[in-house]
Amino acid sequence: MNIILLSGGSGKRLWPLSNDIRSKQFTKLFKGENGEHESMVQRVYRQIKTVDADAKVTIATSKTQVSAIRNQLGDDVSICVEPFRRDTFPAIALAAVYLQDVQGVGLDESVAVCPVDPFVENTYYDAVKQLGELADAGTANLTLMGIEPTYPSEKYGYIIPETADNVSKVKEFKEKPDEEKAKDYISKGALWNAGVFAFKLGYLVDIAHKMIDFDGYQDLFEKYDTMTKISFDYAVVEKESSIQVMRYAGDWKDVGTWNMMTEVMSENTIGKVKLDDTCENTHVINELDLHVLCMGCKDMVIAVSNDGILVADKEQSSYMKPYVEEIGGIVKFAEKSWGSYTVIDVQPESYTIKVNLKPGHQMKYHSHQYRDEVWTIVAGRGRVVIDGASRRVKAGDVVTLPAESKHTIIAETELHIIEVQLGQDITVEDKVVYSME
Amino acid sequence: MNIILLSGGSGKRLWPLSNDIRSKQFTKLFKGENGEHESMVQRVYRQIKTVDADAKVTIATSKTQVSAIRNQLGDDVSICVEPFRRDTFPAIALAAVYLQDVQGVGLDESVAVCPVDPFVENTYYDAVKQLGELADAGTANLTLMGIEPTYPSEKYGYIIPETADNVSKVKEFKEKPDEEKAKDYISKGALWNAGVFAFKLGYLVDIAHKMIDFDGYQDLFEKYDTMTKISFDYAVVEKESSIQVMRYAGDWKDVGTWNMMTEVMSENTIGKVKLDDTCENTHVINELDLHVLCMGCKDMVIAVSNDGILVADKEQSSYMKPYVEEIGGIVKFAEKSWGSYTVIDVQPESYTIKVNLKPGHQMKYHSHQYRDEVWTIVAGRGRVVIDGASRRVKAGDVVTLPAESKHTIIAETELHIIEVQLGQDITVEDKVVYSME
Repeated sequence: MNIILLSGGSGKRLWPLSNDIRSKQFTKLFKGENGEHESMVQRVYRQIKTVDADAKVTIATSKTQVSAIRNQLGDDVSICVEPFRRDTFPAIALAAVYLQDVQGVGLDESVAVCPVDPFVENTYYDAVKQLGELADAGTANLTLMGIEPTYPSEKYGYIIPETADNVSKVKEFKEKPDEEKAKDYISKGALWNAGVFAFKLGYLVDIAHKMIDFDGYQDLFEKYDTMTKISFDYAVVEKESSIQVMRYAGDWKDVGTWNMMTEVMSENTIGKVKLDDTCENTHVINELDLHVLCMGCKDMVIAVSNDGILVADKEQSSYMKPYVEEIGGIVKFAEKSWGSYTVIDVQPESYTIKVNLKPGHQMKYHSHQYRDEVWTIVAGRGRVVIDGASRRVKAGDVVTLPAESKHTIIAETELHIIEVQLGQDITVEDKVVYSME
Repeated sequence: MNIILLSGGSGKRLWPLSNDIRSKQFTKLFKGENGEHESMVQRVYRQIKTVDADAKVTIATSKTQVSAIRNQLGDDVSICVEPFRRDTFPAIALAAVYLQDVQGVGLDESVAVCPVDPFVENTYYDAVKQLGELADAGTANLTLMGIEPTYPSEKYGYIIPETADNVSKVKEFKEKPDEEKAKDYISKGALWNAGVFAFKLGYLVDIAHKMIDFDGYQDLFEKYDTMTKISFDYAVVEKESSIQVMRYAGDWKDVGTWNMMTEVMSENTIGKVKLDDTCENTHVINELDLHVLCMGCKDMVIAVSNDGILVADKEQSSYMKPYVEEIGGIVKFAEKSWGSYTVIDVQPESYTIKVNLKPGHQMKYHSHQYRDEVWTIVAGRGRVVIDGASRRVKAGDVVTLPAESKHTIIAETELHIIEVQLGQDITVEDKVVYSME
């Protein structure tokens, strides 16, 4: 099957483990099959491949997530990068044209679209596969997944089917209701709209061509900033009359807040954490290399990262967004395609960074105008290139990089570097990237 | 007046702001007169000097606290260092002989002894001064302070005076009682024993000579390890018949646990902390350079340092000791006489340290056998000496220090250094100190 995974959002509601450049889907909170922790993106990708080893997965996302996806999923997955944030219709249209033009998917093949967020069991992806098969069969232009509601939620849109059959024509859509209305809808057999749907590729490519004049993927990519911000629901779903819904009754959990996230975590603690015997219903995630001791904590979530520390009553944690926006601050941890970096000290005229490079990977060849840098190699070996001159380095070596020097480092083995940045105006913008001749 | 301040203990009950080398009395939790935060030791010293600007203060303490005392109080205060931990009698005897021999205090002058721990108002030191005056008057060999009890505590010893006068002969002493007995003592006019007393210097020097054969301070210092571990109460107070007690009715608080410490803190938060509107009776102390966000916390104490993170119900926090002993771990922050150091990264074969040197100060001239070091100067200027050769350094300079090289750095201005230690066996013990020719 062909799947487009929509990976968006900066996820301020899972601060401090998500931030402006690290979305919640990359936070490793779940126990994977080999006992190691995996992120939402890793879990979803593993689940899809378990259901269909031949599934072609394309992740539609923004530039800021590419490094983390490559780091976590490697080079096999294909990524369709939105050059700007638009809404879901432009993102899906671009991905559809990408499948056609770059991936060579036939216009008659079915494609399923899923958000990357929900926490689900493997049966969910069996259902996604069935959606694709229904789209292949061609009985409707659009086939949606409808989740059997477990309570009258005010957070989801509802789909009212014509019949109670497993697959039914859609009678109508309802916006997020209040609880009373939700009960009423459910009594009429309504299903939650999970934002999952399948269609034949040609169907969506046609719609894209009707909405914007373009010639192939590269042209659409360049015209992306001229596209209207509009959701797929408004642009496509609500205008389509040939539309059906398939029921899904398995577990399906939105994990957009800490309160909901802790419900699906398989362990109460991750990292160096000690809970005393009087703690109850408390979850602690500690990404730092220091101990967290919790005593007498009830119904709490505690999350510790280089970006901050959250200590919250679980209920209350759902209201964190305005506080997190107020806190702001520099991002202290980031995953890159070549490894990761962590800011370990900030002073008025210096930043100290821990850089980890994966074997065989390298930084981009780059220079800074306003800062000098000093690298102390603390583990591994590799090769530095400075202004075209290459030399081998190993643990214990010190490399000084004056402002304006072009430099990179290539890891032969896993490489750990302490980088001290020195200057009066240290910013992420002060970086020029070059190609290496 | 002459005051001996007893500064002991490693204070595991205020983890993570106290640890094996940083006692609770050096943690800056109180608002000082100029609005800056001050530690217990700084507060006590300021209070004594407010009551008596000419007071001669000697701190009796262990080697491990000398750097922090010098850092916080400067060079004016005199310090009597116990070469080993013995109990309070040896410590006070050594300090008494130090006053006589090193400070030149006359044997007929009075000396008051106070623990550095309790949180008190200035009137307490007025009372200490009066104790000294009573000792000067010579109506008894020992004059004790008795605190008017505010509740039948099981944590303190009791003094039963002969009369209800402000100053009275002592009838008898009682060990820590249960609550029923405490009520009974209080009904008989008993007072809490605060461990504060005054005597003429000659009185204690005589007792010291009776208990051990020594000739002057240096000799007693060298024989210190042969002295019996015994408390001042057992060795002196309980054997003395010429003994009186003076009442004190002001505020007097033991702040040995977080629950009690938070009662006397003037602010609910220290450092980068945000409490939402639903937090109640919660105190947060954050020494790290990242934000702490608290939501819906009730009756909690949260303390964050390089040594760890405590999130505790206030009541429950009193039981932390066994957990803290289990956690153990390396000490990541220490105050030195020349400034401070903070461990910011630990890897299998490297430590990265942030070193701050105060202007005019320097490290000891030293070498390491098993590790190389790399200094990147990130702020200030100074002078390094390596194997006898001296050179000036400033922000931006890099200094490499191979194993076995003798080295030091002298700060001309405030100096900030990122030090990367590299080796397979990095320990604090791997250090040889030299004198500089």
